[in-house]
Amino acid sequence: MNTFGHLFRVSIFGESHGVQIGITIDGCPAGLPVSANDFTTDFNRRRSGSKGTTPRQETDIPKIVSGVFNDITTGAPITILFDNNNTRSRDYSNLIDTPRPGHADFVASQKFGGYEDYRGGGHFSGRITLGLVAAGVIAKKLIDPVRVEAKILEIGGQKDIEKAIDLAVEKKDSVGGIIECTASHMPVGLGEPFFYPVEAAISHIIFSVPAIKGIEFGAGFAAAAMWGSEHNDKFVTTSGKTSTNNAGGINGGISNGNDLLFRVVVKPTSSTHQPQHTLNMKTGEMVNLEIEGRHDTCIALRIPVVIEAATAIVLADLMMLEQRISRRL
Amino acid sequence: MNTFGHLFRVSIFGESHGVQIGITIDGCPAGLPVSANDFTTDFNRRRSGSKGTTPRQETDIPKIVSGVFNDITTGAPITILFDNNNTRSRDYSNLIDTPRPGHADFVASQKFGGYEDYRGGGHFSGRITLGLVAAGVIAKKLIDPVRVEAKILEIGGQKDIEKAIDLAVEKKDSVGGIIECTASHMPVGLGEPFFYPVEAAISHIIFSVPAIKGIEFGAGFAAAAMWGSEHNDKFVTTSGKTSTNNAGGINGGISNGNDLLFRVVVKPTSSTHQPQHTLNMKTGEMVNLEIEGRHDTCIALRIPVVIEAATAIVLADLMMLEQRISRRL
Amino acid sequence: MNTFGHLFRVSIFGESHGVQIGITIDGCPAGLPVSANDFTTDFNRRRSGSKGTTPRQETDIPKIVSGVFNDITTGAPITILFDNNNTRSRDYSNLIDTPRPGHADFVASQKFGGYEDYRGGGHFSGRITLGLVAAGVIAKKLIDPVRVEAKILEIGGQKDIEKAIDLAVEKKDSVGGIIECTASHMPVGLGEPFFYPVEAAISHIIFSVPAIKGIEFGAGFAAAAMWGSEHNDKFVTTSGKTSTNNAGGINGGISNGNDLLFRVVVKPTSSTHQPQHTLNMKTGEMVNLEIEGRHDTCIALRIPVVIEAATAIVLADLMMLEQRISRRL
Amino acid sequence: MNTFGHLFRVSIFGESHGVQIGITIDGCPAGLPVSANDFTTDFNRRRSGSKGTTPRQETDIPKIVSGVFNDITTGAPITILFDNNNTRSRDYSNLIDTPRPGHADFVASQKFGGYEDYRGGGHFSGRITLGLVAAGVIAKKLIDPVRVEAKILEIGGQKDIEKAIDLAVEKKDSVGGIIECTASHMPVGLGEPFFYPVEAAISHIIFSVPAIKGIEFGAGFAAAAMWGSEHNDKFVTTSGKTSTNNAGGINGGISNGNDLLFRVVVKPTSSTHQPQHTLNMKTGEMVNLEIEGRHDTCIALRIPVVIEAATAIVLADLMMLEQRISRRL
Repeated sequence: MNTFGHLFRVSIFGESHGVQIGITIDGCPAGLPVSANDFTTDFNRRRSGSKGTTPRQETDIPKIVSGVFNDITTGAPITILFDNNNTRSRDYSNLIDTPRPGHADFVASQKFGGYEDYRGGGHFSGRITLGLVAAGVIAKKLIDPVRVEAKILEIGGQKDIEKAIDLAVEKKDSVGGIIECTASHMPVGLGEPFFYPVEAAISHIIFSVPAIKGIEFGAGFAAAAMWGSEHNDKFVTTSGKTSTNNAGGINGGISNGNDLLFRVVVKPTSSTHQPQHTLNMKTGEMVNLEIEGRHDTCIALRIPVVIEAATAIVLADLMMLEQRISRRL
Repeated sequence: MNTFGHLFRVSIFGESHGVQIGITIDGCPAGLPVSANDFTTDFNRRRSGSKGTTPRQETDIPKIVSGVFNDITTGAPITILFDNNNTRSRDYSNLIDTPRPGHADFVASQKFGGYEDYRGGGHFSGRITLGLVAAGVIAKKLIDPVRVEAKILEIGGQKDIEKAIDLAVEKKDSVGGIIECTASHMPVGLGEPFFYPVEAAISHIIFSVPAIKGIEFGAGFAAAAMWGSEHNDKFVTTSGKTSTNNAGGINGGISNGNDLLFRVVVKPTSSTHQPQHTLNMKTGEMVNLEIEGRHDTCIALRIPVVIEAATAIVLADLMMLEQRISRRL
Repeated sequence: MNTFGHLFRVSIFGESHGVQIGITIDGCPAGLPVSANDFTTDFNRRRSGSKGTTPRQETDIPKIVSGVFNDITTGAPITILFDNNNTRSRDYSNLIDTPRPGHADFVASQKFGGYEDYRGGGHFSGRITLGLVAAGVIAKKLIDPVRVEAKILEIGGQKDIEKAIDLAVEKKDSVGGIIECTASHMPVGLGEPFFYPVEAAISHIIFSVPAIKGIEFGAGFAAAAMWGSEHNDKFVTTSGKTSTNNAGGINGGISNGNDLLFRVVVKPTSSTHQPQHTLNMKTGEMVNLEIEGRHDTCIALRIPVVIEAATAIVLADLMMLEQRISRRL
Repeated sequence: MNTFGHLFRVSIFGESHGVQIGITIDGCPAGLPVSANDFTTDFNRRRSGSKGTTPRQETDIPKIVSGVFNDITTGAPITILFDNNNTRSRDYSNLIDTPRPGHADFVASQKFGGYEDYRGGGHFSGRITLGLVAAGVIAKKLIDPVRVEAKILEIGGQKDIEKAIDLAVEKKDSVGGIIECTASHMPVGLGEPFFYPVEAAISHIIFSVPAIKGIEFGAGFAAAAMWGSEHNDKFVTTSGKTSTNNAGGINGGISNGNDLLFRVVVKPTSSTHQPQHTLNMKTGEMVNLEIEGRHDTCIALRIPVVIEAATAIVLADLMMLEQRISRRL
């Protein structure tokens, strides 16, 4: 089930320590200018290196091997590849017997019978999201003038994000956070009843991003404590603008022309320098766990651009379904 | 996009005041006993009539017209129909010009060019969820011994639910609530990377249920303020049971054998007896809005069984993908 | 797998002797006039009664229960039902042990474990194609000005069709035939590489029609004995018209603006009044087979309108993919 | 629409003269041994070089970049890439104005607005089938003991194939042919009513192979001239073996345990050394056409292994749907 979308379709592949990772984008209209430079800004935003992120550094150079000719999309499937050139070869095979808490080690081993590529998280690694970001760069161009922006609202329960990171580094632990995403200049009418409303489409792809454990639209969970008269957004223009946006820009699953607005929660990175223990699943013995390797104190810092990408991909699909993007640009 | 699922597939159709509503279930294995009585309990739980729910009473008698022979599924598509016999004929056509705040009136009119069946919410009506509940009854049988249970956690921000309803009735307003859903006796290994992890599959169908505006798994949004060492669930048995369930029974998108656990927020019913106004979208004039008709003070009261149904449908699909349900029972 | 299509999607259900059969059409644009009368001509063409067809007479009255409001499509799923009111109650259960040669009895019993509805062919019955014809009526309106026409080329190897039928009736045997289908006023550009070329899309749905065992486009099998210089259709206009149509209107899987042209072969009806024998699958004994019941001497006579319907459904899907049909008419 | 299959899914990408072509196989069970050597035999069969085939020589070395670890499938998507290292750089851009008869030049230009990669046939090139053959190698292992074999029945209307090729070379023209494919050791019960019967599934992928213009199962078109009593295959064993195989191993769209049997027609190669002319689509002038380049006198010679691959891919999908292949080997 490595494919998402109905008309603008992305298929993802690769493992953290495999030869290459990549993504294929099928259904992208012909005539869209795409060049390697287009990816730089978003790749930099996703890249690690700043405080709170892993020191593993990848070059992240996109190799577009199909679907683009003379820097313009052809209408054929676009495949973009990335080398995995900064992998450290060490032995991960013990993860099958002694899975790390909070990671996918245990479930992967059970699901794939021990045949999974367990190195560096394998196919479950956040590394895979690089392909999503690449597809997001193309999707963002396609959905113009709709504009998607995601930002961190809080880290570790605090608004002062730098302080939260400092505290986590000091405590040698990891932290999560909350990200808010907005899409402005939205058209009315995106989303398909009954099983492809905007919230369903977005949440489907968003939960495919590792570490996301919750999503809420507009007023979200706070709506449970509001009166209906208070929650209902009042129309203020004949084009459908409302005075508030408790609905997050969506009524009945269909975009209403106001900003699309949602928040997601990113759980704390499972890898932490805190002492932990786990079970040896063969012997039943408790064992101390030392997670060496390089990892993010707060993976949430790198996720806003991934959320933007996922959102842009969904919007491209919904806009094509609504015939708001032409097949030939 | 009226179909959901890969192997256990449901297709929904109908409008609130149309001739019939219904659902087709494709891919259900042959050999499952199904009779009309099986639906009674869940239909009663969904039915209105108690305090806080609409006085519109439907008989909700399932007409199974295909796919079941001698009270056993045949392996062919199962279609279940319901008559709409308690509709009140009045004029809803003004909703196109003066859409109700918080409803789908405005977006439906824009999306379908005024051709939509606007009576009683049409295809956007909560009435349509009756088909989902019917499919859920069949799905629940199929996924046995996995057992799904949803219950209300709070209404209008309060744990005392009766008091919250009384207050809303007194204030002539509507309220929302929070529902928690658990699936126990879960197998390890459900969910498919990259684009059909358990959270994505569940959220996709759950957001197809009208009025849902948020979902969180396990610790959910609270995870943003937890340390990684605190959030990581510790293994306590070699079958993968953990001492806590902050992951909601899912790691890396794959079920880990612990209870599946999530919560959803139901927004307050958009229809309320409070005085409201709206815009006439043709003239731009502000107009007073009187929502007559019968409606629910708190639609959340009727939704737990719908959430259960949607969850059971997803689990049936995921279990069939994982070959945990045979094609011939 | 009871659904076909990407944007114009049809889902079929029902059994020959069940309560009702039907079809759901999802994705049909809003604003298309549809009334019960529209179906009469095509239903009459499919109906039995003339020489060579079964005397089983169905009333074939379409019950449109959703998706049409005031005789115009709403954009929501359209479900059309048909009562099965001319079924003869006799015992078909012996078909599980002693399956009829050429029928689906044996495979159905093996696939569905004996739980299948075996009465009158059950879900494998040609009766089910009535829903296809209904969807075809709507699709034909949608694809206008493209016009689909299918006709019988030969029956039992003869161009004189009446004579062929007479001979078969006299010999108390059944016969098949060849049907040719043409779609005129075709746009250029339908079909999607790599896996949804026009030939693939058409053959997929056409082979879903019972009794079809072959399909060929343009020159078809005769192309195997032609020179390339002879087979290549020469361009004669700048809009792409060619002097011959050996390609059947399709190059590289994409429509080229010439008439779409293909032929299908319909095998002889499996039921025949000729003495036959079969095996008792439980005992291994050879048994004489008497197929009573009513059946078609030549089912091919009733199939042209089904082929037209299937073709129109595919073309509607392909034209929507190519944005040649608007979502709001 | 570059993806085919429900559970065993293949996604294809690339152009004849692009950087790389490739295929992604999603849904392949974990635990299947796969190494580079496995591909040699089938790649050699597809490769050109013998009389009647193009002198363009590709090295065809598969680069497996994901989904295989220690020469065993992991359960994650398998991506296999191939370099395009034998492309000749010349100017193909005139094909947009003066499209070659019988090729996809005209339709590609119309469909993709002139943005298509027209070099060497671009995405429409037979080169792309290399990925299919690679996926077929894996599928063949998976469906064991089912065994697929395709062979040439006739070329240019003759059984003496060498003579037919000699004649074509002498006449400086191209020829087509007929290929027969058989799958033996078939299980009973593959195929899904209503829209995924075996014939539909096979024809769908087979028509995605360039140059195929017809397909027939079992007796095929000859069935139109047979009596029903003659066409019906008689059961001879209680496991369903029949004395003849007019049905091609399929009743009611479901495999009956006899050999799957079908034939396809391959049209003559469009490129030929015969003098041809075409239209300049901008000016309307007739122009002489000289197709230089290297091309196959008879592409049919290279297609049997492609047909086998496509068939094996379909059977893998159908067998997984029927749970005849485990998710963990």
